[in-house]
Amino acid sequence: MRILIAGVDGYLGWPLSMYLTKRGHKVAGVDNYYRRDWVQEMGSQSATPICKMTERLEAFHENFGTNLQFFKGDLTNYNFVENVFKSFRPEAIVHLGEMPSAPYSMIDVEHCTWTQVNNIVGTLNILYVMRDICPDSHLVKLGTMGEYGTPNIDIPEGFFEIEYRGRKDKLPFPRQAGSWYHQSKVHDSNNVTFACKIWGLRSTDIMQGVVFGTRIDEMGDDERLLTRFDFDQSFGTAINRFCCQAVTGEPISPYGKGHQKRGFLPLRDSMQCLTIALENPPAVGEYRVFNQFQEVYDITELAEKVHKVANAQGIESEIRNIENPRQELEEHYYNPDHKHLLDLGYKPSQDVESEIGIILQDLIRWRDRIEEKREVLIPDVRWDGRREKCEYIEPDENVKKVRLV
Amino acid sequence: MRILIAGVDGYLGWPLSMYLTKRGHKVAGVDNYYRRDWVQEMGSQSATPICKMTERLEAFHENFGTNLQFFKGDLTNYNFVENVFKSFRPEAIVHLGEMPSAPYSMIDVEHCTWTQVNNIVGTLNILYVMRDICPDSHLVKLGTMGEYGTPNIDIPEGFFEIEYRGRKDKLPFPRQAGSWYHQSKVHDSNNVTFACKIWGLRSTDIMQGVVFGTRIDEMGDDERLLTRFDFDQSFGTAINRFCCQAVTGEPISPYGKGHQKRGFLPLRDSMQCLTIALENPPAVGEYRVFNQFQEVYDITELAEKVHKVANAQGIESEIRNIENPRQELEEHYYNPDHKHLLDLGYKPSQDVESEIGIILQDLIRWRDRIEEKREVLIPDVRWDGRREKCEYIEPDENVKKVRLV
Repeated sequence: MRILIAGVDGYLGWPLSMYLTKRGHKVAGVDNYYRRDWVQEMGSQSATPICKMTERLEAFHENFGTNLQFFKGDLTNYNFVENVFKSFRPEAIVHLGEMPSAPYSMIDVEHCTWTQVNNIVGTLNILYVMRDICPDSHLVKLGTMGEYGTPNIDIPEGFFEIEYRGRKDKLPFPRQAGSWYHQSKVHDSNNVTFACKIWGLRSTDIMQGVVFGTRIDEMGDDERLLTRFDFDQSFGTAINRFCCQAVTGEPISPYGKGHQKRGFLPLRDSMQCLTIALENPPAVGEYRVFNQFQEVYDITELAEKVHKVANAQGIESEIRNIENPRQELEEHYYNPDHKHLLDLGYKPSQDVESEIGIILQDLIRWRDRIEEKREVLIPDVRWDGRREKCEYIEPDENVKKVRLV
Repeated sequence: MRILIAGVDGYLGWPLSMYLTKRGHKVAGVDNYYRRDWVQEMGSQSATPICKMTERLEAFHENFGTNLQFFKGDLTNYNFVENVFKSFRPEAIVHLGEMPSAPYSMIDVEHCTWTQVNNIVGTLNILYVMRDICPDSHLVKLGTMGEYGTPNIDIPEGFFEIEYRGRKDKLPFPRQAGSWYHQSKVHDSNNVTFACKIWGLRSTDIMQGVVFGTRIDEMGDDERLLTRFDFDQSFGTAINRFCCQAVTGEPISPYGKGHQKRGFLPLRDSMQCLTIALENPPAVGEYRVFNQFQEVYDITELAEKVHKVANAQGIESEIRNIENPRQELEEHYYNPDHKHLLDLGYKPSQDVESEIGIILQDLIRWRDRIEEKREVLIPDVRWDGRREKCEYIEPDENVKKVRLV
């Protein structure tokens, strides 16, 4: 299949290009290196030493015996998107080309509006170009589990059948996103739904959980194939940040009470799931939603796992809760469905701890790179608009109890 | 109360400035005259001969003995919005300053993305400025009943209590908007909800029905106080367009089968309802939704009413259905709640036909202005992307039956 990856220079896009190529797909990629700029703006860098795109492309060719066709440009530029589609004629598009950070979007009004405009316009351009150039192609769009928020009822996959005042309908499940970034993904989901409806496009909207991990097998031992690994408050994700805290001797720091529950999945599972979506496309005109995660975890539970695996590797670490810069429920019901991918053959990695072990092993080699930027391990972008470093706090009784077990 | 009207040069904004001033409020307005440009771009003009803003402001002063403070500028310019708020310090903002047309947003990718960016960024700027300058002020934001689409269950006012798999929650009612414009309003509603939640802002989100009418009593006989009245496919609304078709001898033309049901309200009711919302603000941090319309009507039923009233005034007219340029259900369940405004004292005009009579009387005087642009009475912006004049079609049997009654 000819697959175009938008955001091929990113954390997921780069390994996905290898994973799909290894499976025999013809892959092309688009990027304009914004992720590198954003992380630099946050005062940080990738823990893994990543190569420039030219070097990446060379290494890709050497390892996989084929070229990754690369287009440098901005998805908000319609003519650029049109030219890419006319040249590559994708049968599927994996749209990872958005600004993916909640805190980054919450910095101030400029970051808020830029995030929403960038994400919405990029997606709208892709939809229009699909309509006009490749109407049969399949858009695999990355959404986030964060679109749903944390309602007090089960979360289905995108749609639910309900009865209300004696009548029934199948409706989109209400979204209650918790940041301007998450809202931009809700806006995208709504726009994609509408485009499928009026133009007969097909799309899989992936409500992805939080991804963690440094590597996939396809990278082998060639360090030029490494993907980025961020640990700043904006672009680093929970488990990844915990691991960076552990290897640098900083406290592993859940936000607030630390009982937020989220769906998580290893990088290798994300690759597997996206591939399943690609290889099992929806019908013409169909908009379907996959909740994509391996398992739901309590944040404190994950902090404990990192702590335990680090200890076993002789890395001393401690857990200290920190003020929550976000406004979110810290204790809540959470029970999202995730059956669609399992039905299509997804085999979840069962062993989170061994994945954490691999991350820690990798990170020890690049500890200096994390230490150089260690101040970014403490969050300061607050949901109330202040930019002020969070302080460590005493965990509540519940958390203490969990730790004593 | 100091009330800022964003979009004060528009169909609703201009009469609202008079209505509120007459009730003793201190009103200021913002506009950048985009509506005049858009209508010109559609090859049309207001049926009513409207004055320039400088003349409007003079007439306003003469009639009401006070100045309408006017700020010319663009809501997508943050510094402009901030300066307006710092200068006027509104206690309430009525946000009518958006691009309000479904067909205009559906013209092509440029109109689509421009619409969403313009509406979203303007609203986000207002939210940030409220947070920083007037956090206690009340945002009355104009949404549209079109945000909900036409689900097969009752439509509550914004939120509903549901039971799902044995658990209960109160959730936002799912939105299924039918154009890029309507989607932009959904995006806005989501963004405003989130701002109220994290910053404690207060907002009333008005899901307004389709407004019709040429005048409100506060205009008196001074023609300089007339508001605009559009009849092109993009900026003219159903009853208003039907009336223009009647007075120029063009067929009154419901789209498709003509059984679309929508909530409607006269211009004077819209003024009354917005004022009720303003004078009964929500609590701090509250985001509430009002469904604002007088009554639900079937489009064919309204065409019949215009036909009947026109006949009574000696204006010969006929009804001919026309191809539907939109993709929408033409026969569907529709039962939206609209209790909140009634509870607060809204007294609906009961007599749609006498309102139609007033419109026709007014329009006869400006018939030449409509005839000059009569080609805009036929729609050509189609939801599938084509730009092609719609053709008249035979009504289905149901419609014929209605007419024979």
